[in-house]
Amino acid sequence: MPPTGLPVPPIVQFHSRPETVDLAWGHPDPASLPMAEWTDAYAGALRRYGGSALTYGYANGPGPLIEWLAERLGHTDGRAPDLDQIFVTAGASHGLELVAALLCGRGDTVLVDAPTYHLAFRMLADHGVTLLPAPSDPDGIDPSATGELVQRLRREGHRVPLLYLVPTFGNPTGRSLAGPRRAELVAVAERTGLVLVEDDTYRELGYDGPAPPSLYSLAGDGVVVRLGSFSKTVAPGLRLGWLTAAPPLVAALARRGYVDSGGGVNHATALAMAEFARLGSYERHLASVRLRYREQRDALVAAVRQHLPEVTFAVPSGGWFLWLRLPGPVTASALLPYAETDGVSYLPGTHFFVTDSGDEYVRLSYSLFGPETLVEGVRRLARAMARSGDPVRRGTDARS
Amino acid sequence: MPPTGLPVPPIVQFHSRPETVDLAWGHPDPASLPMAEWTDAYAGALRRYGGSALTYGYANGPGPLIEWLAERLGHTDGRAPDLDQIFVTAGASHGLELVAALLCGRGDTVLVDAPTYHLAFRMLADHGVTLLPAPSDPDGIDPSATGELVQRLRREGHRVPLLYLVPTFGNPTGRSLAGPRRAELVAVAERTGLVLVEDDTYRELGYDGPAPPSLYSLAGDGVVVRLGSFSKTVAPGLRLGWLTAAPPLVAALARRGYVDSGGGVNHATALAMAEFARLGSYERHLASVRLRYREQRDALVAAVRQHLPEVTFAVPSGGWFLWLRLPGPVTASALLPYAETDGVSYLPGTHFFVTDSGDEYVRLSYSLFGPETLVEGVRRLARAMARSGDPVRRGTDARS
Repeated sequence: MPPTGLPVPPIVQFHSRPETVDLAWGHPDPASLPMAEWTDAYAGALRRYGGSALTYGYANGPGPLIEWLAERLGHTDGRAPDLDQIFVTAGASHGLELVAALLCGRGDTVLVDAPTYHLAFRMLADHGVTLLPAPSDPDGIDPSATGELVQRLRREGHRVPLLYLVPTFGNPTGRSLAGPRRAELVAVAERTGLVLVEDDTYRELGYDGPAPPSLYSLAGDGVVVRLGSFSKTVAPGLRLGWLTAAPPLVAALARRGYVDSGGGVNHATALAMAEFARLGSYERHLASVRLRYREQRDALVAAVRQHLPEVTFAVPSGGWFLWLRLPGPVTASALLPYAETDGVSYLPGTHFFVTDSGDEYVRLSYSLFGPETLVEGVRRLARAMARSGDPVRRGTDARS
Repeated sequence: MPPTGLPVPPIVQFHSRPETVDLAWGHPDPASLPMAEWTDAYAGALRRYGGSALTYGYANGPGPLIEWLAERLGHTDGRAPDLDQIFVTAGASHGLELVAALLCGRGDTVLVDAPTYHLAFRMLADHGVTLLPAPSDPDGIDPSATGELVQRLRREGHRVPLLYLVPTFGNPTGRSLAGPRRAELVAVAERTGLVLVEDDTYRELGYDGPAPPSLYSLAGDGVVVRLGSFSKTVAPGLRLGWLTAAPPLVAALARRGYVDSGGGVNHATALAMAEFARLGSYERHLASVRLRYREQRDALVAAVRQHLPEVTFAVPSGGWFLWLRLPGPVTASALLPYAETDGVSYLPGTHFFVTDSGDEYVRLSYSLFGPETLVEGVRRLARAMARSGDPVRRGTDARS
């Protein structure tokens, strides 16, 4: 028995609300996780590597996983990184934390895409930096305006070490930055010495064809740090990811005191992932979740078209999110209490901007629920929208 | 095939040198790791918790492990922490990294015990702090002189947020700070507002009786952050540990951007550890490694007494290390090349001080090798010492 009357903490992050179709969570459906295959891979790695799997690992990450990552990226990206350009992380967020610790100082100015992954704001702000949005338009970040902003900020005496963005099947938009802008952004970064931190978490989740080549694959050494993850392709609870960067930055991460002291950041799990890949489980599982998420995307897109004809959106060709633009005048935050009353939820667009904007947008996640639940969620959202725009029905929850 | 001719990185941190009895490494014998039991626990956790084991976890660490840790500390320490005083880390080093990120700023002065765990220096220095040794004597840290130093530094305008030490079966000395000094040090910290970061990695590895109550258990809220680990009791490759701290500090860690984003720092492994404990494997394995390390300590101590009668040391009653004082005039660093030539190695004492001192000390690890190898290592060390002190035989490797 615990010594005090405090409640035992929960197991998982997700708060289940059975009455609500909660489309706010960018989490996988627990039923989609590779329970048996991962159990086998973990046991297989312990058999294959013996005590080497449970002792202090190589600080960059164990060789077998690094070798497989290089090979895999040769298939899924514009080019394979060299082996000394790969560092195994404890997830993409941990990669961002490490890179920020290395590149950012208190008082620096860091640029972030607008909109972009909201929790990255807090991860960066933890390092004492000020966040500014990079200039963008409906097609995404505007490279030349971004270059001008960097130069202006530097003339004003600011240190601007990096720009964070999710250019491929992005969170929250599902959008990918088009090829010419990628090339232009890399050129701007090369010219200004701005490091692009490319969160490439969703690369493997393309539903209509392969993902575009990463910024990393287009750039010279030292221009881009690209963050990869196994959270979306395999399982977030493993806390395993990787990054690609110039060899000196990879070496600096491996020399970091706690990485060296710990023998890498998630050694046994990294070897289990190498085994998961070797057994073919990675490819098989990825094929199955791709199908699953494509179906879920299609169901959500069709339901929105049917029940919410007045909202606009671009069909995402990958990732986990649909980014709706409300027709107005109701805003996403004004709509939210109606939605909650009607048993559906989402994140208002404001979460994804560091400035006070985005309230005309709604982010819906389609990762957590199957097609029927997604459709029901959209029905409820349509009901909430109708109520929110109808002065007679407003607030009359009992009758709606 | 990897795309370039670079060598594939290794799997583990340890560089095997089969010809050398390398007593420099504070690593476990790979043969001592609980391969089968851990495999079972991991598979058991995936069965027990299902998809909850592989999705985003609770940021503080999963409830079942936190509950067990509280209970366990009720047996192994002076008091059990409350459930909201526990945070699950990715190892003690990761705990130190997190605490330093929260408490230290660039330019701060941080005190460290002298001697103490050498890689902690780099972990702290990564945060831009200056390290100073806390005053100590042969019985360990001197609390009142430490309090005076803190006050003097602060009068001179320095910020002194914390003191790092390993007061129980410490690295490198194997020594434990005596009870009265513990109480005095806690009182000094309470009076000065200095946070004690207590690395409690070796608590469970007592060979002659239980460990003394931790500083944490003696102190009021907010005075001590205590770092715990599963690296020595179970396996370092898991990257799993924990810390106990005042609830506001635990809450601040859980709110840290990348911890929140990742859903804890090593969720699946943490649940597997809860299962390892539930199955009784933790207690059984700990009993077996305690026996093993006690035997190894005894063999090393006896061999040093027999073959190196001129060195002095205190028999450690726990931990992984023997801390020898050389009789002089040869220093540990001067002896090292002779030792290497004779097929034995160690860390000179200088590693464990931030000032230029300690070269009269040698740290021998007894964790990695069985009794026979340890004895052979000491024989070689005795030969090296004889050669190093004998002008005729110096440098005549072939005849030694």
